[in-house]
Amino acid sequence: MMSDEKRASGQGDSLSPDEFRRYGHEVVDWLADYLSGQREYPVLPNRQPGDLMDALPAHGPAEGEGMDAILKDFREQIVPALTHWNHPRFFAYFAVSASAAGILGEMLTAGINANGMIWQSNPAATELEMTTLGWLREWCGLPDTFFGEIFDTASVSTLHALIAARERIAPETREEGAPRGLVSYASEYAHSSVEKAAMTLGIGRNHHRNIPVDAEFRMRTDLLESQIEEDRRQGYTPFCVTATIGTTSVTSVDPVAEIAAVCGRHGVWLHVDAAYAGPLAICPELRHYFDGWERADSIVLNPHKWMFTPIDLSVFYIRHPEILRKALSLAPAYLRTAEHPRAVNLMDYGVPLGRRFRSLKLWFVMRSFGRAKMEENLRGHIRMAQELAARIAAHPRFEVTAPTPFSTICFRLRADEATNARLLAEVNTGGTLYLSQTRLGDLYTLRLAIGNVFTTQADMDLAWETIQREAEKL
Amino acid sequence: MMSDEKRASGQGDSLSPDEFRRYGHEVVDWLADYLSGQREYPVLPNRQPGDLMDALPAHGPAEGEGMDAILKDFREQIVPALTHWNHPRFFAYFAVSASAAGILGEMLTAGINANGMIWQSNPAATELEMTTLGWLREWCGLPDTFFGEIFDTASVSTLHALIAARERIAPETREEGAPRGLVSYASEYAHSSVEKAAMTLGIGRNHHRNIPVDAEFRMRTDLLESQIEEDRRQGYTPFCVTATIGTTSVTSVDPVAEIAAVCGRHGVWLHVDAAYAGPLAICPELRHYFDGWERADSIVLNPHKWMFTPIDLSVFYIRHPEILRKALSLAPAYLRTAEHPRAVNLMDYGVPLGRRFRSLKLWFVMRSFGRAKMEENLRGHIRMAQELAARIAAHPRFEVTAPTPFSTICFRLRADEATNARLLAEVNTGGTLYLSQTRLGDLYTLRLAIGNVFTTQADMDLAWETIQREAEKL
Repeated sequence: MMSDEKRASGQGDSLSPDEFRRYGHEVVDWLADYLSGQREYPVLPNRQPGDLMDALPAHGPAEGEGMDAILKDFREQIVPALTHWNHPRFFAYFAVSASAAGILGEMLTAGINANGMIWQSNPAATELEMTTLGWLREWCGLPDTFFGEIFDTASVSTLHALIAARERIAPETREEGAPRGLVSYASEYAHSSVEKAAMTLGIGRNHHRNIPVDAEFRMRTDLLESQIEEDRRQGYTPFCVTATIGTTSVTSVDPVAEIAAVCGRHGVWLHVDAAYAGPLAICPELRHYFDGWERADSIVLNPHKWMFTPIDLSVFYIRHPEILRKALSLAPAYLRTAEHPRAVNLMDYGVPLGRRFRSLKLWFVMRSFGRAKMEENLRGHIRMAQELAARIAAHPRFEVTAPTPFSTICFRLRADEATNARLLAEVNTGGTLYLSQTRLGDLYTLRLAIGNVFTTQADMDLAWETIQREAEKL
Repeated sequence: MMSDEKRASGQGDSLSPDEFRRYGHEVVDWLADYLSGQREYPVLPNRQPGDLMDALPAHGPAEGEGMDAILKDFREQIVPALTHWNHPRFFAYFAVSASAAGILGEMLTAGINANGMIWQSNPAATELEMTTLGWLREWCGLPDTFFGEIFDTASVSTLHALIAARERIAPETREEGAPRGLVSYASEYAHSSVEKAAMTLGIGRNHHRNIPVDAEFRMRTDLLESQIEEDRRQGYTPFCVTATIGTTSVTSVDPVAEIAAVCGRHGVWLHVDAAYAGPLAICPELRHYFDGWERADSIVLNPHKWMFTPIDLSVFYIRHPEILRKALSLAPAYLRTAEHPRAVNLMDYGVPLGRRFRSLKLWFVMRSFGRAKMEENLRGHIRMAQELAARIAAHPRFEVTAPTPFSTICFRLRADEATNARLLAEVNTGGTLYLSQTRLGDLYTLRLAIGNVFTTQADMDLAWETIQREAEKL
């Protein structure tokens, strides 16, 4: 309890624990209503850029304001400017969701506020991270030689893959700096984060090769190998290949086993980007999509994408964590503790020093769902996607523009780009659902991705009716 | 509402909204009790490495478990293995805290689950980030030419400073790769993240110069300038100087104005690391410590350190955001939206693509405290530190080993290193408080950092009594 003297002097928290209790209950009630009433919101807000900034005060308050006023402004100013990612008809990019169990975990993480930079600074977070990532590794059928750690996003996980790959081939980097001429590879349908990692690390876009794909948008292994050979002849040093299981545009699956063989022959690091599709490996009947990923040097998969875990939580598995440790470990005097073989200091394996207690929400989600219910949800999403893809393909005015292995449908009106772009804009403006777009080669294509735990078949039906109705108006 | 059909088929969330409501209230009550009863916990847990992992199941559950069981295990297994960063007598590293308002903001962020990678994907998060960082910029007396964005940690903010600095001096990096011979500078007391950034970017530790400090642990500007000149003569390319306001070991303040002049003369990027002390710029009478930082090219300061905001939230200000955009922007087809001068896509200014809605908690904290109460808390921490430093200095067996400009006291027993290390271990094992250690030159020194919003003078008295009592036992 805060002493009266303390409160009187103006120090201490802005709310007492009892005030926190009262407003905490109010926030929980709002969240419970939000979880049950998400469909009442337009998925995409009806706002122009700058509207919210213009509506908010230009200056922070000199004196503290009451929580009633803050929560009122949250409801009246912030919520109407939100894109509702938790909405069951959010189908843009990759659909994600914060499950109730995940939200409860986040609430506790916020209150505990522990920082797991070293074991001693948060034994619970350090060991729960290792435990939950061990569970997930097993659910995904990966060997226990993979060491797991959590980053915020897949972009940062992939950055660490390239750092480790560079360290293996050029161990002088840590002290002397990276050699020039390192070359990275991924398919032309790989996520932009691979190219961004090459830019970040000073490798340069011109030394990142976008390998062409086959008719089903899968990396051409023959062209990968010939490019590696050509680069070697030119004096370059191939150091990392990123294969993708579930590319962002089109969710195609690179032939990972073949790529692993190429990487093995040429001594190149294999990173597997399964940020989106990775959780599907939990389902035994879908495991074939992952053939070969057990031979990867590193893997990224995102529970905040398709495991109903609130953003952010990206999982990075690496077969040789000591390589990353060699590249990045620094233990300044103010962080040194006694060594112990089981006291892992996670700061040694990454760029960020501070670490939120992210594994807590994953633990809540994995325990609350269990493997069975997680599998059922994933299968349900794929089933709903397959059904919708069939309906789209059967419609005379629409076409499906790519295979639909998972839960993301690429489709378009049989019409020109401008008409499709107008259809997208009209659908999204209506607020019933939210789609995004991509390009397959030059072909402008709409994308509908299913992955939200709240999505039902009725949502799918309404989405498809809305798309057809908007198309009829064009 | 979830349909019965849906629940029956095993799909959908693992908890209904009503179950979320019930357990949410239970979690809020636990958190309220935690906030008022934090002093009942040992700050550092009585656990050996591996204890928690050994106690937890080795395999994830096949079937979902009830939330009652999960919350029970949280209380009985996780909490006893926590280092309690929110405890009022956590004085290690830098003391931080999650205020009640900040926790409420995090709860909403978790439930909303919005990702602000581009404006359209979360207008509220994008614009609230710009609004709150505008408020903070004004509170800190920084010119509005600084563009603000949020990263997870100061390490990642500083990484972006070096990326921007590299881009300015070597704009060919994005396409062609970074030139060799870039050299970075910081004082030998700078945070390890500066050196780690140089390692990450492939610059190499040998091209990061640790500039010696004066008797008060401040960077020697004369030696910085002569080193830059010497490096130029040797054919190296000086590209970034990091000056620190509040170094991690000893909270010394580099002469930023003088360093800015050196950087100006030599065309070198100036990054200011004010991760810890930055929020003090809110207090007008302390603004003199920040002389010159308004001339920086970039600045990092961490509201999750000393602004009572739950981890993680690091603020990065950059004077020329277009440089960072040039270095890192990539807009793949699946993320392209119509351009609008006020629709900022924050993904363009950083490595991570996904972005939690972090500004919400900062908005809650800034509004709930207001500037006045924020200032009062910061002043209170400094006052408590000054008082304790005076008491330590007056004690015959203790000495204060460095100036105490802010809220962090470096001190030690007048005894050898082993005795001081034993004192540290005994104090921390007791659980009443948690201290950490550092080295000032070769001198092993204890550190006591005040920054937790719940800390009172009574906590300080108890801490000092405990330290003295443990010292008497040695």
